[in-house]
Amino acid sequence: MSLRGEIVTIGRELLMGEIVDTNTSYLAQELAKVGVTVQWASQVGDDLGHLVDTFRRALSRSDVIVAAGGLGPTSDDLTREAVASAIGEQTYVDAGLLEWLEGVFRQRGIDRMPPTNVKQAWLVPSARSVPNLTGTAPGWWVQKDGKHIILTPGPPRENKLMWEGQIAEKLRAITGADVLYSRTLKTAGITEGGIDETLSDLFGKENPYLGIYARTDGIHLRIIARGPSHDDAVALAGPVEAQIRERLGNAIWGADEETAASRVLSILGGRGSSLGVLEGASAGTVASMFGDLADPGAAYRGSLAVNDIGPMSDPTLQYLVNAAGSGFSGEETALSMADAARKLLGADVGLGISPRSIPTGGEAEGAIWVGMVSDRGRKVAASRFARGRANSAFRAGMFSLIELASALQAGEL
Amino acid sequence: MSLRGEIVTIGRELLMGEIVDTNTSYLAQELAKVGVTVQWASQVGDDLGHLVDTFRRALSRSDVIVAAGGLGPTSDDLTREAVASAIGEQTYVDAGLLEWLEGVFRQRGIDRMPPTNVKQAWLVPSARSVPNLTGTAPGWWVQKDGKHIILTPGPPRENKLMWEGQIAEKLRAITGADVLYSRTLKTAGITEGGIDETLSDLFGKENPYLGIYARTDGIHLRIIARGPSHDDAVALAGPVEAQIRERLGNAIWGADEETAASRVLSILGGRGSSLGVLEGASAGTVASMFGDLADPGAAYRGSLAVNDIGPMSDPTLQYLVNAAGSGFSGEETALSMADAARKLLGADVGLGISPRSIPTGGEAEGAIWVGMVSDRGRKVAASRFARGRANSAFRAGMFSLIELASALQAGEL
Repeated sequence: MSLRGEIVTIGRELLMGEIVDTNTSYLAQELAKVGVTVQWASQVGDDLGHLVDTFRRALSRSDVIVAAGGLGPTSDDLTREAVASAIGEQTYVDAGLLEWLEGVFRQRGIDRMPPTNVKQAWLVPSARSVPNLTGTAPGWWVQKDGKHIILTPGPPRENKLMWEGQIAEKLRAITGADVLYSRTLKTAGITEGGIDETLSDLFGKENPYLGIYARTDGIHLRIIARGPSHDDAVALAGPVEAQIRERLGNAIWGADEETAASRVLSILGGRGSSLGVLEGASAGTVASMFGDLADPGAAYRGSLAVNDIGPMSDPTLQYLVNAAGSGFSGEETALSMADAARKLLGADVGLGISPRSIPTGGEAEGAIWVGMVSDRGRKVAASRFARGRANSAFRAGMFSLIELASALQAGEL
Repeated sequence: MSLRGEIVTIGRELLMGEIVDTNTSYLAQELAKVGVTVQWASQVGDDLGHLVDTFRRALSRSDVIVAAGGLGPTSDDLTREAVASAIGEQTYVDAGLLEWLEGVFRQRGIDRMPPTNVKQAWLVPSARSVPNLTGTAPGWWVQKDGKHIILTPGPPRENKLMWEGQIAEKLRAITGADVLYSRTLKTAGITEGGIDETLSDLFGKENPYLGIYARTDGIHLRIIARGPSHDDAVALAGPVEAQIRERLGNAIWGADEETAASRVLSILGGRGSSLGVLEGASAGTVASMFGDLADPGAAYRGSLAVNDIGPMSDPTLQYLVNAAGSGFSGEETALSMADAARKLLGADVGLGISPRSIPTGGEAEGAIWVGMVSDRGRKVAASRFARGRANSAFRAGMFSLIELASALQAGEL
């Protein structure tokens, strides 16, 4: 049974444009997963009349209404009052909720809770409270005349925690929707057309569904399986993943939360090798991608991002000067940069990313060359871009790390 | 005269949560600037009944309705149909608009425009078209019974271009709202409390208004002045800026769109000096901040981000090994890293960012030290953080660049 859903996000700041409303897209995605089809979403200011109007209208056209915001203790926080008025019920102070709330304040070293906070312990007869494990704003779950109104906190982190821990599964039990399991496989070096052809018999099915998406780190394949339980869904997705892996082989460089940087380091770490990087066009984005990992580990030595290939003190960097000065090709420059990175940083594997070659009047395209060097082999990859189109530092860095992950996985380095 | 505004963003993808709606916050901010107070905002799917319903309700409660999306050529693009129905008018093909549209296709090398696109040349009697300089979807500006309905394209870039070029000033002329002028001054090394005290007589005024905001790159002061013309507003803001600069002096490191990185390079470029960086805790974020600039210019030589201070081939990097191995303090490590950066990259000014010192059981806080070295002087700054709180790579990089900008500005380097 699919229920009709409606999202209401509340707060003056949303209508002033002071913050971008991310709760709506988050809740919309999550509601779809538990079998609620969102048909309406709106933003309302801290105005009691507007809020009552909005909840009344939502009750007239939707089965499940999820609101975010307006649960704080101030006189501007009017969501509870509005819902009570819209369903014609009286608010009262819930003794258990009040006790919990006073305990939260004592834990924070505040012996006497400010009296304004009492309204956070309110309920109405048709509502039960939804625990908030991170803040002082409990949610409400109102059930009346077959409709649900669920009130959640506005701060996105609190909202997500309450949704995941207290709401999603209960709502799924009500709709009876299947459990979703999704698995993402990340590819490189193969076109969308090529994938389409290779996997044509796997596309176009309902369950498991196979989707294809162009992302900044390459083309992703997402398998979405549905079943009465998580295990059922996983069992449906498994054979499809096996088929894809068999046919695409090393074109798949990672899965789910893996990034190109984490994949490179897990391969290198597994064989006790290390990496050094010298960046031209990527301008420090490769260093940042490794820096973003919780713990890069010993396999990553470091990255030198140079603005310009000029004179440098290190003799190993003379490679660069030679490359820049002596008519080296892009391939030769990238490989010599990889050699220099290896030497400078005392690494087993060197990654060199050439400066950007900008297309001039006579050229149709520019390029960035990526050199990869180890004792096992030497490899160059080129990312070409048409005149008038940018190839940003981020794209250059991402391309380099994906190429490196693929080459390492294929045993070429 | 302030008009009541309403924003309607349109598209199934908004209710699926597939994209975050940034048009609403953009339009809300922009409407406020031209004297329209937004009271309602909503997202609606590609459903004719829902759209007509939404526009009728908006007309009943708002003076200016701005919609974004649903102006494409497909059968899912129903915004024009919905507005026509809501105001009870018939659509017709506008000859001039059709000619323009066919011209756009010819320019793209398509001789025969697909027949589905004809609806993009539609108007209703109360609407005039709003030129779209980047796409094939002209906007509509409907004026009827004292109300305005303005239809704009969904892609945020197209939306912004149409708003800025074709709508904002015309709407301001209608509301008669003042022109806003805002000027942001960026500070470092001074607390919010300290600023509050120093500038207390400048706060709390209506026009020019002075606001204070904590941002990732320090505390910002924003002067907002209103006047009948841009020049009037600028003339009001000027004396306030002069007062602030006189009292805060070198604590102000930049203004408006200046970043810490651009400020550093503009000072160094002005005196023909260059910068080299060696990054520990900032993990490549300094390199990225320079890489993000459109053209870092010759003053920026490069940045080496090291994961770990270990053995390296370059003799100048021996500084690091010494620092790591011989019980150097954080200050000494940062200064020796700055020296090494200068030598490695052949730069006049060296910036060294120490690895993070993580607070252990016995320590209350950790720290990151920033060493800055040139022929003119040597300086260290420390960013301390309490146990259990993170000090991210981004924060370490930002702190370092702001400290460097301040030291350069004060003539310490």
